[in-house]
This record gives sequence, C-alpha cells and structure tokens, in this order.
Amino acid sequence: MNAPDDDFDFIQPLFLGPAAENDQLLESLVVEFLRDHAYWRRNFHPEDGFRIEADARHRPDFLAMQARIRSELYKLSADLKRAVPFFHPRYVGHMTGDLLLPGLVAKLVTTLYNPNNVSEEAAPVTVGMELEAGEQLARMFGFSCDESKEPCAWGHLTGGGTVANYEALWNFRSLRCYGLALQAGAAAEGWDPEGVGPASKALSAYTTWELLNLSIDETVALRREVAGRLRELGDRARFHAFSKAVRRERVEHLGTAGFFLKHGIEPPRVLVSASAHYSWAKGMKVLGLGTAQLLEVPVDARMRMDADALDAELERAERERAPVLCVVGMLGTTEFGTVDPIDRIVEARDRWKERGLDFGVHVDAAWGGYLASVFRRPDGSLHTREEVAQGFRHFPSAPVYGAFAALGHADSITVDPHKLGYVPYPAGAFIARNREVVDFLYQEAAYVFDLGDREEPMPTREKLHNLGQYILEGSKPGNAAAAVALTHRVLPLDSTGLGRILRMTVRACEEFYDSVAEVRARWAGRVRVCTPFEPDSNLICLAINPEGNTSLARMNAFGREVFQRMKVEPGQSLQGHDFIGSYTSLRHDRLDGHAERILAELGIDPATLNDIPTDPDSADHIFILRHTLMNPWHLSGPDGVSYVERYWSWLERTAMEVLGS
Amino acid sequence: MNAPDDDFDFIQPLFLGPAAENDQLLESLVVEFLRDHAYWRRNFHPEDGFRIEADARHRPDFLAMQARIRSELYKLSADLKRAVPFFHPRYVGHMTGDLLLPGLVAKLVTTLYNPNNVSEEAAPVTVGMELEAGEQLARMFGFSCDESKEPCAWGHLTGGGTVANYEALWNFRSLRCYGLALQAGAAAEGWDPEGVGPASKALSAYTTWELLNLSIDETVALRREVAGRLRELGDRARFHAFSKAVRRERVEHLGTAGFFLKHGIEPPRVLVSASAHYSWAKGMKVLGLGTAQLLEVPVDARMRMDADALDAELERAERERAPVLCVVGMLGTTEFGTVDPIDRIVEARDRWKERGLDFGVHVDAAWGGYLASVFRRPDGSLHTREEVAQGFRHFPSAPVYGAFAALGHADSITVDPHKLGYVPYPAGAFIARNREVVDFLYQEAAYVFDLGDREEPMPTREKLHNLGQYILEGSKPGNAAAAVALTHRVLPLDSTGLGRILRMTVRACEEFYDSVAEVRARWAGRVRVCTPFEPDSNLICLAINPEGNTSLARMNAFGREVFQRMKVEPGQSLQGHDFIGSYTSLRHDRLDGHAERILAELGIDPATLNDIPTDPDSADHIFILRHTLMNPWHLSGPDGVSYVERYWSWLERTAMEVLGS
Repeated sequence: MNAPDDDFDFIQPLFLGPAAENDQLLESLVVEFLRDHAYWRRNFHPEDGFRIEADARHRPDFLAMQARIRSELYKLSADLKRAVPFFHPRYVGHMTGDLLLPGLVAKLVTTLYNPNNVSEEAAPVTVGMELEAGEQLARMFGFSCDESKEPCAWGHLTGGGTVANYEALWNFRSLRCYGLALQAGAAAEGWDPEGVGPASKALSAYTTWELLNLSIDETVALRREVAGRLRELGDRARFHAFSKAVRRERVEHLGTAGFFLKHGIEPPRVLVSASAHYSWAKGMKVLGLGTAQLLEVPVDARMRMDADALDAELERAERERAPVLCVVGMLGTTEFGTVDPIDRIVEARDRWKERGLDFGVHVDAAWGGYLASVFRRPDGSLHTREEVAQGFRHFPSAPVYGAFAALGHADSITVDPHKLGYVPYPAGAFIARNREVVDFLYQEAAYVFDLGDREEPMPTREKLHNLGQYILEGSKPGNAAAAVALTHRVLPLDSTGLGRILRMTVRACEEFYDSVAEVRARWAGRVRVCTPFEPDSNLICLAINPEGNTSLARMNAFGREVFQRMKVEPGQSLQGHDFIGSYTSLRHDRLDGHAERILAELGIDPATLNDIPTDPDSADHIFILRHTLMNPWHLSGPDGVSYVERYWSWLERTAMEVLGS
Repeated sequence: MNAPDDDFDFIQPLFLGPAAENDQLLESLVVEFLRDHAYWRRNFHPEDGFRIEADARHRPDFLAMQARIRSELYKLSADLKRAVPFFHPRYVGHMTGDLLLPGLVAKLVTTLYNPNNVSEEAAPVTVGMELEAGEQLARMFGFSCDESKEPCAWGHLTGGGTVANYEALWNFRSLRCYGLALQAGAAAEGWDPEGVGPASKALSAYTTWELLNLSIDETVALRREVAGRLRELGDRARFHAFSKAVRRERVEHLGTAGFFLKHGIEPPRVLVSASAHYSWAKGMKVLGLGTAQLLEVPVDARMRMDADALDAELERAERERAPVLCVVGMLGTTEFGTVDPIDRIVEARDRWKERGLDFGVHVDAAWGGYLASVFRRPDGSLHTREEVAQGFRHFPSAPVYGAFAALGHADSITVDPHKLGYVPYPAGAFIARNREVVDFLYQEAAYVFDLGDREEPMPTREKLHNLGQYILEGSKPGNAAAAVALTHRVLPLDSTGLGRILRMTVRACEEFYDSVAEVRARWAGRVRVCTPFEPDSNLICLAINPEGNTSLARMNAFGREVFQRMKVEPGQSLQGHDFIGSYTSLRHDRLDGHAERILAELGIDPATLNDIPTDPDSADHIFILRHTLMNPWHLSGPDGVSYVERYWSWLERTAMEVLGS
C-alpha cells in the first residue's frame, strides 16, 4: 500500500521529521546562522567597543534578570508541550502540517534581522524576496511575468488568505469604479478627450453601463490614454487640477454609499461558490459592500460551482443592470478540498463580455493553489492530464484538470504558503495577473515614500519596492518573505520540486477514499460510513451512523462522541491521543440537493433534518469528520502498516467502544 | 550627559546588544528550547519509531539536498548582511530598534510549534497568551479587566497598527448602525418591545437620530434587553425569525450604500487629527466609507489636535445631522511623536452626549501606547505628574500627562508591540474597553466553530477562544502572542518594568532637543537649524538650511544631499554609514499656520513655498530629517561621548562637506 520508496527518500532531508529525526541538522543550521548574525553585529562599527561590559554578566542583578527570563521561557516551553502535534502523520485535522526545513530556518534566521517589508528602506533584502515569491507563484499559476509586455503579473504576501481575499475585493472595486470617476472628473473640469477607450470615442460618449463593464486591462489602458492626452497639453496646473477632480469622484473618496447614490446604480454584486470560505462574507461586511450583494452560486453533487447556475445569476444581473464586481471560484474548499470549474467561469467571462457584461475572475486557492505545482513542468509549461495522472487512480479528474489549466486566465488568485507551502504562519499571498492595478491603489506617506513628480511615470518594478503603498496592510514581516522565497528556491513550484511532495498527499487521500468500500463491508451491520463528497484533492470527509439508527440528532451525537477522542482540548495533553482530527457541519440551509442522497446512504430518516429542530430526534445539520491529509508520511508507518490503515483500525475500535458504552 | 548607570545595568541582560554582547546567552537559550522541541516530538508515540532512517543522512541524494538547503541559506545569510542595523544606537531612523531577548526567544521557540491563533483548536496555548497580552495592554491603558463587572476590556493582536485601525472603524460602524437595524427588524416582525433602551420607551419610539447616537455601552445593553424580552416569550421559532430579520437590516448585510440610502441619512463621519497616520485614509477607502467622510481636525503649533477646532467640527455635524462614527486622537504621531489632547476629546464626548450627539473615541497609539507604562505604578494606579517628571527636564508636559491619564476613557486603542514593545514583526494590537462588542462581529465557520445553541448566552471568555470569529484577520501566528505576552511577563507594563527602558528613550530625546540651542550657536553663520515642533515624546525632527539661502527648493536639495549619507540604499552595504536616519516632508497643504514660523527660523522666503512649484527656487514641501530615538543606548557611547553628541558632530561635518562640495 506504500508509495514508491524514492518519494520517501526525497522528503527525508526536507522536514524536521515526525520524531525530530533531523534535529542535528536543524540545530547546526540555526546555530551557524545565529552566530553569523551575532558577528555581523560585531562588524558594525567595531571601534565603538561594547555597551554591555564583559563582567556585567557576573553581576547579581544581571544574573537575576537572566534567571527570570530563563524561568519564563521554561514555563513557555513546558506549556507548549500541550501544543498540537501538527507535524505528525497521526494529525489529520486542520490545514497545518510539518514545516519545510529550509523555510523554517530562513524564518528563524531572518527574524534576528527583523526587516519590515512595508518598504525597502526597512527591508533592503526581503522586499526583493517578497516580489520574487510573488513571481514564483504567478508563474506556477501560468501568469506571465515578462516585464517587456503587458499584462505582467505581480504578487505579494499577506497575513493570510482572509486578507488576500479582502484585497481582491478592494482591487476589483477600485478598478470597476474608476471609469465612471474619470468621466465625472473630466466633466467637472470641462474637458472631453476624443477617441479614447475600447470603443475609441469621446470619454463623455460612454454610457454608465459601458464604463462599469470595462475589464481591468481596459481600465488600465483608458487611464493611461487619458493621462497621455493630458500630458500632451503641457499644462502642469491643469494636470494637477484634473488629477484632483478625478480623485474627488472616485469610490475611495465618495465611499460606497456616495458613489452608487451619485450614479444611481445598483451596488455591485459578488458571485461566489456556495462552498466558499466564510472570509468572503466577512470581506463583504468589512468593505461595506454588504452580504446582501454576496450571491451564492449553487454547487453540484460534487460540491463544485454549477456553471449553469452561474449563467443564470449573470443573466439576472444583466437584466437588473447590476454590475458584477467579480466571480469567485474555489480551488480547494476549506471543508472538502473540492475544486470549482475555473475554466467554465473564465469561459463565461469571455462569453458575457461580448454581451457587454464584464466581471473580474478571482480564484480563492488558499488551500489548493500550491497543487498547481503538480501540473507544471520545470520549463513552465503545463503537463498533459495523462502525465499528471501517472501514479494516481482518480486524480486529476477532467474537471479538476480543466480548472487548474485555466488559472492563468483569472484576474487574481489567493494562495496560502502557510498551508500547502509548509512555511510558518503568517504567510498568505495575493497574486494579480496585471500589475498595473497598483496605480489605482497607491497611498502616499510622507515619511516613508519620497515625493516624486507623479507626472513622470516611474517604472513599475521600482514603485513596488515601496510595497506599503499598494497593499492593504502596513508593517509586515520580512522573515515571511525570506521563508517563502527560499522554500521556492530549494523546491521549485513544479512537478519535480514541491509538486513531488504534494502528489504524496493526494495519493494518501486516494488510498483513504479507495478503502471506504472495504471498510463499509467490514463494518456492515454495525456502523454505516459515507463520504458525502468524492474528494477532488487531499481532503476527505466521513459521516458515521450506528446501523439501525434513523435519527439525525442521535447520529450527530454518536459522531461527536467518537470525535471527542480525537479532539484538541485546551489544557489537556494530547500525548495520549492516537489520532487528532477535525470536524465540520453540513447545515440544513446549505444542503439542497445533497441531503437525501447522504442521509439515505446513512440510513437516516430525512424528516429528522429540520431548519429549527423541535424534537430530540432532529437536527439542523449533519456532523461530519473532516480529514486533511497534508503530511507526506500518511502512507508510511511502522511495520509496513500505513497511517491511513491505522486510522481505520482506530476509528473502528473507537466507534465500537462508543457503541458499547 | 549620560543617564544614571543603574538604568544601563538594568537593560544589559535584556537585549542581544549593539555588539551582540549577549550572543552566548541567546545561543544557549535557543539551543536548549530547540532541543526541548525535538524531544517533545520524539515523545509523541515513540512506539512508531522513525520515518527518516538513521542511515538516510549518509545517502548521496540526502547529502545533495542538504547541501542545496545549506547553500541557499548561505546566500540568504550573506544577503542579510545588507540588512539595516536597527539594533544599533547609530540607527536613528524608523520606528524599529533592537529586540528584547525574552520576546525574541519566545518567538523563535514558538515558531517550531507553529500554532495558529485563529482558534484554540489550533493553538491551545497561545490563544490564551494572546488574550493575556490584550489584558496586560488594557490594564496599562487604565481599562478594567474585572470580569465580574461591565464594561470589561479585551484586546488581541493584529498584523500591525494599520489593521488595528481598520478594526476600530469596523467595530464602530457595526455598533453605531445596530440600533437602527434592531428597530427595522422589529418593525418587520411586527413586534415592539416597551420600555427598552436608555430612555426606557418603546423601541419604535426612538428617532433615527437617537438610535444613531447610542454609545457602545447603550447599544450592548439595548441588544441584551431586547433579546431577554424575546427569550421570555419562549418561542424558539419566533426567536430565530426575529434574529434573521435583524440580520437582514444590519449595515453588514445591506452594505454602506444600502443602509444609509434606506434610512435617508448622511454617511457617518470620522474626525481625525490632521497629523494622523495615512492608514486612516486607507481605512476609509478599504471600508467603503470614503475619504470624503474623513475630516481632518486642524492641529495647533505643537502639532496636537486643536480642541476648539474639534468642537467646531462637531457643531457642524450636529447642524447637518451627520452621525459621527468616531473621533481619532493620535498618541505619538508617526512623523513627530506628538500627542493629541485625549482628555479634551473625552471631555468633548461627554459634553456632546448631553446634547444628543454621541461618538466613539479611538486612540491611535501605535507608536506612543507603550509609553503609558511610564505613567503606571506596579499596583496599576497612575503616577502623579511630579512622579513621572523625575529625571526629566520637560517630560511630561501638562497636556501630555493629561492625554495619558485619559486613555482609560477611550473606547478603543491601537498599539504596536512591534514598535515600542521591542518584539519582532508582526505584532500590532487592538484593545477595546467593552468586550461585549464581539457579539456584534461574530462570523461562523462550520469547520472551526461548533454549532452552539445561540439562544443560550456563552460566557464571553469562552467565546473569545474562537478568536477568528471576532476579528478582521483569519489565520494568525501564535508565535507573536507568545513573544508579546512573555515580554510583558518579564517586563511588566509599569514604571519599574518596560517603562524603565522607555524613560531612557525620552531622556535621549530631551538631550537631543536641549542641545539644539548650543548647536545653533556653534553653527552660526554656516548652517541654520530648526526643530519644527517641540517633541512630546522620543521623536525629533530637524530642518537645516545653509546660511544666506532663501530658496526652499535649494534648502530641500541641501537637506536631501546630507540625508544621502545616512540613507538606506538597497543593494549597498550599510557598514560604512556612521548614522542611519529617516526623513519626512511637510507638505504645503498641511502646513497652515506653521509654515511662516518655521521658514522664518530657517531664513527662507515664504514665497518659495507653493502649491505647485513653478520655478526652480520654489517647492511644495519642507524636507525634514526625522529621528526616532528608541534605542536605550543613545545616551551611552565609547569614551564617554554619547551617540547624541556624536550625531551632532557627524551632522556638522557632513553638512559642511556638502556645503563645500
């Protein structure tokens, strides 16, 4: 049942390991670079001598403070023994695993230098590494990073996927509302450039709907065209006055309320897969767009966005003349690891564009983004589906392959290096297909960014060194950039590098999934088991029900009782746990179409699933065990028995115990 | 000129030191706890044996990969030699200094365990430490953390001050709009509870203006009162329907545009000091409130918010019936370290509340917040001004003392542990006076947070363990929480702990400021020097101008040329720099009232300051050298000559060089 041995060979030097097998390697690296840092300090103005005298360390108050520091650290280290053993293949819970050694050491070492990536002035080395990491990710997705032609992609790190998702909404809103602001600003200044924009006509001749439906590239081009015309006039005062007038008309100035009221238009809608992460609802709230404008596109029986339902929503938006800010597809949902048909979304975008309705395409690939490395050849080209499929039984299905192959056509992508990039928290990333968007976002701070003459365009790459001007966050850790870029340097984002590790995680999921039938037979007459959705990647969920039970509430109670034995209880040691997992709940109001099938498989009376449970037999959700299989050693194990097999044995034993109690 | 020796004794064991004097201490701690981590791993299911075989490390491919990791790390470590020596007293630039050893080691150690503070399930130890850090900060500000009475404060970490500021706006918007949503929801459900709210009348009897002007505490109480009434009815279905109806009416659902349009009210205004950080403008954009609603309250000649001007703005808001979301005071501006009159803002709040106009009070203390430790006795009470003033010549002025003493009356405060808390990036914090606000913000994620019965109130402390439900960010590093809480444990946030270090930084600033007169005399006839604003804390700015020059543009060019020698140039080594600084620009449009005084002192013709410079002599800003004095060794130095004195000598030499060239 084990995977090819050479894969296990490949990963051995890359992690500290489930038993800290590489402890000496880690220690030697940390000590070496810690000393390197210390002697770097000592080489800065050595003529200054020492501020802490050599004999200070023998003074009683020095020793007392040192003891105080040490005893607080003892306590911390002792408390951390209750931390979650994410590193171990017995951990099958949330989206966290062991850390790749190169990134971990890079993180630790760079922390000593403490760069702040808000600008190159505070991070001369790591801002460059952050932009490098952005490009590495962009290339993995199939974006062009060729500076000699447009669009050229860029990307940067965020505190996490949630912030990257906010950033997508913020970018789209800014761009989508710009055309109208430009037109209003020009009108206020009594100037009407001729022959501009995609229709090559006077700026004033564009209808509100047309301006609301410019793509990102068209908006970038329009702004540049108008600025060029203005510059040709050679009147600096007028240039400034015009810039000010446009700024006054932008949604950023007027606010969402003021802008949409002024133009008498519907607030923009965001269409997301019904399986989307909760940060999208949060983002709509935070950005003031409102969850009423967040429309959930139904998913199919595989938990993937239904492309026909998407068309229906777009149809409605067009009919109601409501601008669509963006359509968000999920590449690896948080709950099931399922993959939306990104190719179908892109295809819909192109089709609707012809009908005059434009929308941005964002992919929330916080989880699944790194799996793109499995599809990428070292030369940057895409593997064929057949090539990717080697060594798998199901992966990648045609829809999954299609989704990954289409990534390069999205406008922007969220991906979390602190998930399948195996680097420490915090490390999210926002990657955009056209880096010219940054001109729409910049924010000037006198004490950080020099006052340039904004009339002279600055090369984009140079601008980006003042990162804080173009992103949502301010101060940010340079050590995260070092960890991510260095990890990508050691393990390129293709099928021979990081992809090789990720293949092992998908393989573990296939093994898990393929053993369900056998387990079902083995448990027959005792416990029913069901996988609500076939896995698209490396996440798999299970529902379990004692044979004969028809009450959903009782089934949930049974599942919760089993889960109790693999649950993290703060304050309690986890040393005795055999496995550590996670759960999720399929809520009644999100189950349309699926509930019957799933409940039937489990032998549950569908009448016990209610919106508001009124009797002790009914519940408003289905409790589900959720397994994230990101540890590369799940298919390894002592005595040739893999952790996947061990998990099944443990689950069987535990379920029977709970049944018996 | 040096400070008392015992202060220098106090800090010696606390930092790695300007010459890495404590390198052995750091190394021994890191190695000890790294091994502790390794053996923790080895104690988790030791019966599983090893996944990486003992002889693997001798295999050629293992050695090859190990060499590859090491060589990438060599390159990183070599590149980092171009990092900025923030740790040294010769660094007088941005708001970064050396790191406190206990927090640094806590950070490094905890990174190995990689907890995710989004929820206790992924961080059983460090979520508790994050809430502890929040309480430590809350107490330093004078908030009550007594759980047995309300309001009880809470706080949590953010990626930085920028995000904490967003969070303040998000909190205020949510709370200020809640009353109206509650009324609208009740109306939709045809229910009108009697005798509720501060006026003890029917919910429907409140006017829009009254509901918009409920304080946070009143909103919390009203919600609880109405929920209580509803619960008394004992009708679960009705409870759910009502909750849903209110949710549909909230600004979070309708969006800013929908909500304000529906109620026919002006979008809410945010009043900030004209000296505020640029993240406030960014926040207004990101949250969709719009910079048009961000009103800058003028500052006085000391760069502090003018309390009379604030009253005038409030008067206008009342007249125009525009709700005021909050007034933001700065406690230590980013550019000058100046302090707004928080006491006057609080006093205005209480006064205006009587006239029916309520607003939140937020203090942006990203920089100056930790200085509150200087004012706090170990027992938590406030030092008298006379006690604080011991050992200072100017600090704290009466207005500065008044501002710090009033912090406990604010609604919320931003503070950055990664600034004057001397911990690594990222570590910002948002602290709120009344933790009940979290009920207005929560966000449910099925796979992280269990489905509780929301009708039964859960204890607030327990709720907070699912941190991700109540904050703007999602996944977040537990290592930051460990670093901050542990630093506070070793150095309590009072005048005997961290305050003792911070006093040294203010003293350095006083020495710097007091030497200006002497320097001016020494440079007479060669270069004029001016401090545009008297320092309130530990930041000081200088403008310099060659004697006889009357052109602002030439003065700026001179300043920039001098600055060139203390500037961080990416790609270039900083080893040869004598000092490293930062600069800022006083822009024409932000200089009303100050320009004449400053330019006169420098001998500059005021006519050369223009909005749009048209001739080579004029400019639209004043270039200024900015000095952040946060290193505790600025008043120390080789041969008994402090770094402050050395800086003056260096500046004189450099200015003369530039003059002569």
